[in-house]
Formats: sequence, structure tokens, C-alpha cells
Amino acid sequence: MPGMEARNPDFERTVRESFSKQRIMATLGASLERVGAGEAEIHLPSRADLTQQHGFMHAGIVATILDSACGYAAFSLMSAGSGVLSVEFKINLLAPARGDLLIARARVLRAGRTITACHAEGHMRTEGETVLVAAMQATIMTIEGRAEVTG
Amino acid sequence: MPGMEARNPDFERTVRESFSKQRIMATLGASLERVGAGEAEIHLPSRADLTQQHGFMHAGIVATILDSACGYAAFSLMSAGSGVLSVEFKINLLAPARGDLLIARARVLRAGRTITACHAEGHMRTEGETVLVAAMQATIMTIEGRAEVTG
Amino acid sequence: MPGMEARNPDFERTVRESFSKQRIMATLGASLERVGAGEAEIHLPSRADLTQQHGFMHAGIVATILDSACGYAAFSLMSAGSGVLSVEFKINLLAPARGDLLIARARVLRAGRTITACHAEGHMRTEGETVLVAAMQATIMTIEGRAEVTG
Amino acid sequence: MPGMEARNPDFERTVRESFSKQRIMATLGASLERVGAGEAEIHLPSRADLTQQHGFMHAGIVATILDSACGYAAFSLMSAGSGVLSVEFKINLLAPARGDLLIARARVLRAGRTITACHAEGHMRTEGETVLVAAMQATIMTIEGRAEVTG
Repeated sequence: MPGMEARNPDFERTVRESFSKQRIMATLGASLERVGAGEAEIHLPSRADLTQQHGFMHAGIVATILDSACGYAAFSLMSAGSGVLSVEFKINLLAPARGDLLIARARVLRAGRTITACHAEGHMRTEGETVLVAAMQATIMTIEGRAEVTG
Repeated sequence: MPGMEARNPDFERTVRESFSKQRIMATLGASLERVGAGEAEIHLPSRADLTQQHGFMHAGIVATILDSACGYAAFSLMSAGSGVLSVEFKINLLAPARGDLLIARARVLRAGRTITACHAEGHMRTEGETVLVAAMQATIMTIEGRAEVTG
Repeated sequence: MPGMEARNPDFERTVRESFSKQRIMATLGASLERVGAGEAEIHLPSRADLTQQHGFMHAGIVATILDSACGYAAFSLMSAGSGVLSVEFKINLLAPARGDLLIARARVLRAGRTITACHAEGHMRTEGETVLVAAMQATIMTIEGRAEVTG
Repeated sequence: MPGMEARNPDFERTVRESFSKQRIMATLGASLERVGAGEAEIHLPSRADLTQQHGFMHAGIVATILDSACGYAAFSLMSAGSGVLSVEFKINLLAPARGDLLIARARVLRAGRTITACHAEGHMRTEGETVLVAAMQATIMTIEGRAEVTG
């Protein structure tokens, strides 16, 4: 992300605190692996109880992880004290989400005062091989004066 | 849905069987309340472990339920022996998903031979009052000769 | 649109003035047929120079008309003196856009202070028969203190 | 595009022939600047009659160019004799589309047998400076046995 500059010097801690309050992330077993200025990476190990009927991870669960990655990529660039909200997202399911681990990486395309647009990709990793399984384009909103409204 | 005609006379049973194999639906606590020709309705009671950090249902979980509703609305119109796959979906989050029960209703906009387009809306109900919280537009694909690939 | 209330009593004139300044609408030959509180309808007669290579109206031109319809449906509910901006839209092309006249109807799904979500459908009419050819879900933004920034 | 392989050795000529039949491209003044295996670049010089009311290029016209770029990026990977169809696309408008020249670059994210997903970005160039103004994620369909159905 050339040119992406964080206005909150403590953005990583702010993002990690918010992530830790997203109870759905613990429910699913997701972890925030990396936060940068305008970037976030979330991992989710596959689990049988997150699948549709053929053992692939459900598209909505893939979307849940990519959406949070987009939200936190956007949140990393916001001022301290702001909140973050998903306005909308769109996801293409590119291949069946089968494998051991979903790796979701999001980056900010453009951060405006109110609206931030993000792109995210989801890869499934199995024994060292990774396959692109999903791509997302999302619109995230900054909520001034209301910290940590995410998701 | 005037003019929507099911080609599989046993479509309701076929849809319900597939839904019962989506393990994520049991994990979340969702139920398939209604299936019609080109229509489906899924309910999900709110639960603290499905929330983001302010106690609203996570956008991705709302998307999971609306996506399955779209998939089954489309599936209801497919021939016996077909499978169903989400190609992509887009969701707008219209209001915070707080309340007791998420009610997702999907209907087919147009069913083609390979591609079906659906619209879904999600309402949150609390003590008799319902609020529109999400709208989805989704693209679903028919997989010939491979039953029940959904999600 | 039950419950949709215009805050600008003169909204129809405001919308029509803005539409008349969209030079692309005259270039394409589009007309604003109807404006209501939270609703707009735009017509575009087919023309050979707007087609892709098989004589169907190009998907992007269908999108142009539906996007403007969404923008003006949203604009009709905004305060006098506001401007309107498309944040994003998503369109499904449901059938080839062939026929005499494209009829785009948009309605507001939810109007928030900053963000308005709209749904639009496009029908092609030929000798009295109409076919649904496109569906759009769009996010529109209110720009305070900057009148008539649309498109 | 590592790993993108064209099955039609003559893909560039096939793509250029199809582009030349899209009458809307000539109407708008667009040119196909580059075609690669899984990639396409289209340029559109700004023109006053393509604008919304503040002199920016209309969002739908930006979408028209990015959609054709996605369609031709996908088409470049298809077998000779196939046709191409836009199933749906989603575009985020990231900044006002003002400037001299719109440069749309599309690339294939994943090419399946029936469905291809693409990502496109639109930049506006003015006197050597370029600004990212739009991002698109699109779903394109291969039509077997029906050449050159695009758009």
C-alpha cells in the first residue's frame, strides 16, 4: 500500500482490541494474524461444523472472515476514537473452499473521509499448496465519535 | 413469484434434505421455515456468540443466512438431480442487526438454464416490531449431474 | 414506498433540474418519466449506436440508466441543498437487453442520514411485451452543503 | 497473470474483432489499447457529452468501459468459437471521474469452464498524473457454440 498512512499511531493495538471483542471470531476460531496501515490478514482453520453439505466451508463464513479483514484494513487508517461499519460487500466464490486453512488478506483501495473501499482475497491452504477461493470488494464507513462499531 | 414453476415435483423435500446437511446452519441455530417454488425463508435467533463487538449480529452471519436463502430459492426451481452453487453475492447492511430474530426471505428474480439471480431481504424482529436490516442480490449456478453442492 | 417522506417539498423540480444537467442522458436519449418520494423511472429507447456486437443494448448503458434512476430515487428524499453521489452499484444482467425501450424503475430500500440504499429493475418493452433484463442494488451518498453532485 | 494460458492462439485478433463490433465503443470514443492472455486495457478520452451535471464522467460510462475490459480479459482465455456474456458486475466509485483520459485495466482472477471472475481498475489521467477512480469485480460467462456475444 504505497502512500497509506495511519493517523492513529497506535492503530495496531486499537484494531486488535476491537477484533478481540468480535465474539463471532472466537466462535468460528479465527485469528488476526497481521495488521498494517491499510492492511489486515485473518486466518480461519477449517472445521466440520462450518461447512455446507459437501464439506466445503460455507460461502457466508468465508464472507464473514473477508468482511472483518476489510473492516480492519479500513479501521487501521482511521483516527483514534472513530468507529467502523460495513456498508456493503460483494464476494465472488472462485473455487470450492476446501482445505485446511482459510487465509484472508484485505487492503484499502481508497480511504476517504467517510467512505473507504477495500479489496480482499481468500486463499485455502492445504499442505503447502494455496488456492484462491474468493475475492471481495467492500465499502466501509467511518463513524465519527463512536469508537469500535464494527462488523 | 407469478410464473415460477418447479420442475421437481418433490422440490420441498429435496431442499429440506440439502438444508439439513449444511452443518453450519445447525452450528448457528438456523431453521428453514418455508420453501416455495422460487422462494425460501430462513430464521436465525440472535445469540451473543454470533456478534461483533457491540452486540449486533455480525454482517457475515447475516450474509450466511441470506446466501443460503437465495441458494434454496434457486434450488427449488431446479430439476431433480441438480446441484446448486453460489457464484457470488452482494449485500447491503441497512441497519444494525440487533433484535431477537433474523428473518431472511429470498425469491428468484430470473431462473436461467445455468444461472439464477435472486433477491433477498433480512429483517430483525424484536417483540413484534420488524426492521429491514439487509438486502442481497445473488447469482446462483445450477450444476448438472451433481446433486446438492450448495453453499 | 410506504413511509417514505420527502423533506424537500419541491423535490420533483429539484430532481428534474439535476437530471436536465446530466449531459449523458441527452446524449443517450434518456428521459425522466416519473419522480416520487423515494422513486424514479427513466426510459431509454433502443438505438443501434448503443449496442454491443449482437444488437443488444450494452450492459454498461443499462447500468448507466439504472444508476441514474437509483441516484434520483435517493435524491428525492434529501433535504434541499444536498448533493447526491453514487458510492457503488451492482447489476445482474438477467436477459439480453433487446427490444424497443428500456424502462428503469428505482426505489429506496432505506434512506439514512449519509447513506441511502436503492433497488432498481430494468425491463425491455417490445410491442406491449416487457421482459425483466436487469436488477441493481446501489449505495448512494448524501453530500451536505454541495448541491447536485450526481452520477 | 502467472499461469494464465490462452487456448485460442489467435486470441488477440478474436478480441479485437469483437471489440470493433461493439458500436457503443465507437459512440463513446473508446479504444482497445492492449490485450494479453487474461488482460485487457481500454481507454476513453473525456468528453463533455458523457458527463453528469458537474462535468465528471458519469459513473455508468466508467462502468461501461470497465465492463468491456473485464469481458475481453475473460474472452482472451476462451476457446475459439466461444461467446462471452456479462453475468453481473459491481463497481465502486472511488473518486470523481474528472480528467482527460479514463484508463481501464482488467485482469482475470479465475477462469472456470463456464464462469470467469475479473477485477478491473479505472484511472483518470490528467497531464501525467493518474488517480484511481473506480474498481470493479465482475462475473463473465462463456457461451459455447455461440461466438462473440459480448457486453
